[in-house]
Amino acid sequence: MIKIGSLSAQRTPPYSLAPDKIEFGRQCTPNFFICEYRNGSWGEPRIEALHHFSMHPAANVFQYGQAIFEGLKAYRHPDDRVVLFRPAMNAHRFQESAIRMGMPPVDPDLFLEAARTLVDQERAFIPEAPGTLYLRPTMIGTEGSLGVRASNEFLFYIITLPSGSYFKEMSQGTAAVRVYVEQSTSRAAPGGTGNVKAAANYAVTLKSIRDAKDRSCSQVLFLDALRRQRVEELGGMNVFFVRNGELITPRLNGTILPGVTRASLLVLGPDLGIPAKEQDIDIDQVVAEVASGVITEAMACGTAATVAGIGELLFEDGRLIRIGDGNAGPITRKLFSEIQALQFGQIPDRFGWTMDVAADVLAHKA
Amino acid sequence: MIKIGSLSAQRTPPYSLAPDKIEFGRQCTPNFFICEYRNGSWGEPRIEALHHFSMHPAANVFQYGQAIFEGLKAYRHPDDRVVLFRPAMNAHRFQESAIRMGMPPVDPDLFLEAARTLVDQERAFIPEAPGTLYLRPTMIGTEGSLGVRASNEFLFYIITLPSGSYFKEMSQGTAAVRVYVEQSTSRAAPGGTGNVKAAANYAVTLKSIRDAKDRSCSQVLFLDALRRQRVEELGGMNVFFVRNGELITPRLNGTILPGVTRASLLVLGPDLGIPAKEQDIDIDQVVAEVASGVITEAMACGTAATVAGIGELLFEDGRLIRIGDGNAGPITRKLFSEIQALQFGQIPDRFGWTMDVAADVLAHKA
Repeated sequence: MIKIGSLSAQRTPPYSLAPDKIEFGRQCTPNFFICEYRNGSWGEPRIEALHHFSMHPAANVFQYGQAIFEGLKAYRHPDDRVVLFRPAMNAHRFQESAIRMGMPPVDPDLFLEAARTLVDQERAFIPEAPGTLYLRPTMIGTEGSLGVRASNEFLFYIITLPSGSYFKEMSQGTAAVRVYVEQSTSRAAPGGTGNVKAAANYAVTLKSIRDAKDRSCSQVLFLDALRRQRVEELGGMNVFFVRNGELITPRLNGTILPGVTRASLLVLGPDLGIPAKEQDIDIDQVVAEVASGVITEAMACGTAATVAGIGELLFEDGRLIRIGDGNAGPITRKLFSEIQALQFGQIPDRFGWTMDVAADVLAHKA
Repeated sequence: MIKIGSLSAQRTPPYSLAPDKIEFGRQCTPNFFICEYRNGSWGEPRIEALHHFSMHPAANVFQYGQAIFEGLKAYRHPDDRVVLFRPAMNAHRFQESAIRMGMPPVDPDLFLEAARTLVDQERAFIPEAPGTLYLRPTMIGTEGSLGVRASNEFLFYIITLPSGSYFKEMSQGTAAVRVYVEQSTSRAAPGGTGNVKAAANYAVTLKSIRDAKDRSCSQVLFLDALRRQRVEELGGMNVFFVRNGELITPRLNGTILPGVTRASLLVLGPDLGIPAKEQDIDIDQVVAEVASGVITEAMACGTAATVAGIGELLFEDGRLIRIGDGNAGPITRKLFSEIQALQFGQIPDRFGWTMDVAADVLAHKA
């Protein structure tokens, strides 16, 4: 189904496979998946040597930002099997994103087959556990034509990158990050695109992220656009609180990305005896309940970081709120360990969440 | 100041210079302006033959949509002078857009000098009046590195394209366009980026625009994200109504682009004896006041279309509201004629809005 084209001559990694040696983001494995859309249909899907794109300065993605992406990881198990974690959720979300952004949807079967085949091909470049191979499926509008309208030509591609730990602060889930509470700008509004993975959603957060870094914060917490009160997401990760011993996370109200890790924690928590529910919460309430001890933990979750404790919240006026003792709490650590163990095959996959990249995708049920 | 690099051998236009023969968007003039940002500073600004960009698949603009643009036009006067219309407003807005999107600001003097020098260079490719040369200044994040953060490398470039009439319906301002009222999705929210010219703002509208085209509408009217009631803009143009003989246009409340044509009409109207003010209006009120005859005209305005009558509003439920007799009204036609006459040098520029591209930019006051 996927053509194996002209591959890179590189057979051994140009980077260390030791997870603590990997700087995420710049190194790609030598081959990638690519497929072009033109004249109303998708062309031949293939894997070939990674190369730059030649693109007209008027390309839609440069001018009108028609672009979506996904993020998922491949994990090497002790028995040397390589698995993807709930990739059908990414395939489905990629399709939803495409539809919302006026782009041609990619058949989830093609998405899965492409991801599986590429990872299988790049097997030698997967870091040692707990390192992973990060997959970045992307679709961009490439037609070089001005006029505000959807592109008629697209590239769907998947690049893969070795990944160590996402946060420098994080090591086995014990440390916690400082998060900046963005009270001036917003990420998404009702009727917008906050619930799909559009490049545009990230574009509007880049200044906030830089401002947060300048204040020694690793992440930004976005609030609702209307009242700037309801907690939404971290603009790259979802957020959970432990409230009265229960996990709560904001409801999917159309402005929040439906994260794969978020969905998994909502199942995993109860399975471990930790009740979990979707419930909105205002930032003022968070502050009050952290002070009164009702909220004991906060965590960020996403494919890149898995689960990370949020130790402190920094506000624009300089207020710094410490959550618990400022480190990842016991429930955060338990969830981190459990999901990592599942992903890396240290415990049996009782949920059927992992997909062997060597297996027949079309037979796999997510 | 701007280096003239290796230019295209093309000396005569590959397209007709007759405005009614020009299909906007695909044809560029053979040379363009380009300048790279790297290691914290802008490199050598230069004009050279238009070429494709070679870009890494992980480029920030593909992944996180860091991109802004501008739109302005060059007009050929009867005395063969070529002028830009209020280019300092574009230069200023480009700088504002860059700051909001976490990109390095471009010195307005460099912006103006680049625009002026490029148009002067491409003089032979300017269509006959009322055709124009459209300038598209653009800045994109080019660093090939994953991780949600601002790019460290950028391209600032300007391409120029021959332009005839924007709307097929429009001919000398007498016909009017049908506009689709978007009631399901929104373009921008408070705290977002609706007041700058970010690619991301357009990305979220592409599906609406396609849906509108499918319903035979040329443009989409966006309402506020909170109540989906207050009229905002057309997602590429600002909107005006004639209400009790007075021009009104929504206030710049942070979610609307401060258009150059919008600002000009607010000056030009009163100068012609038509009072003008910034005043918010709900779409329900528009419908009621069109019916009662209080609102007699509606118009779209922007650099591309100048001023175009809005003849009909189509709602999601199929309601079609005709404004006036469905054609461009007398005030719309008057404003269109006046601003066109100013831009094309058929009447003296009593406002000092035009800048001769052969003149010394740094001596010009906007």
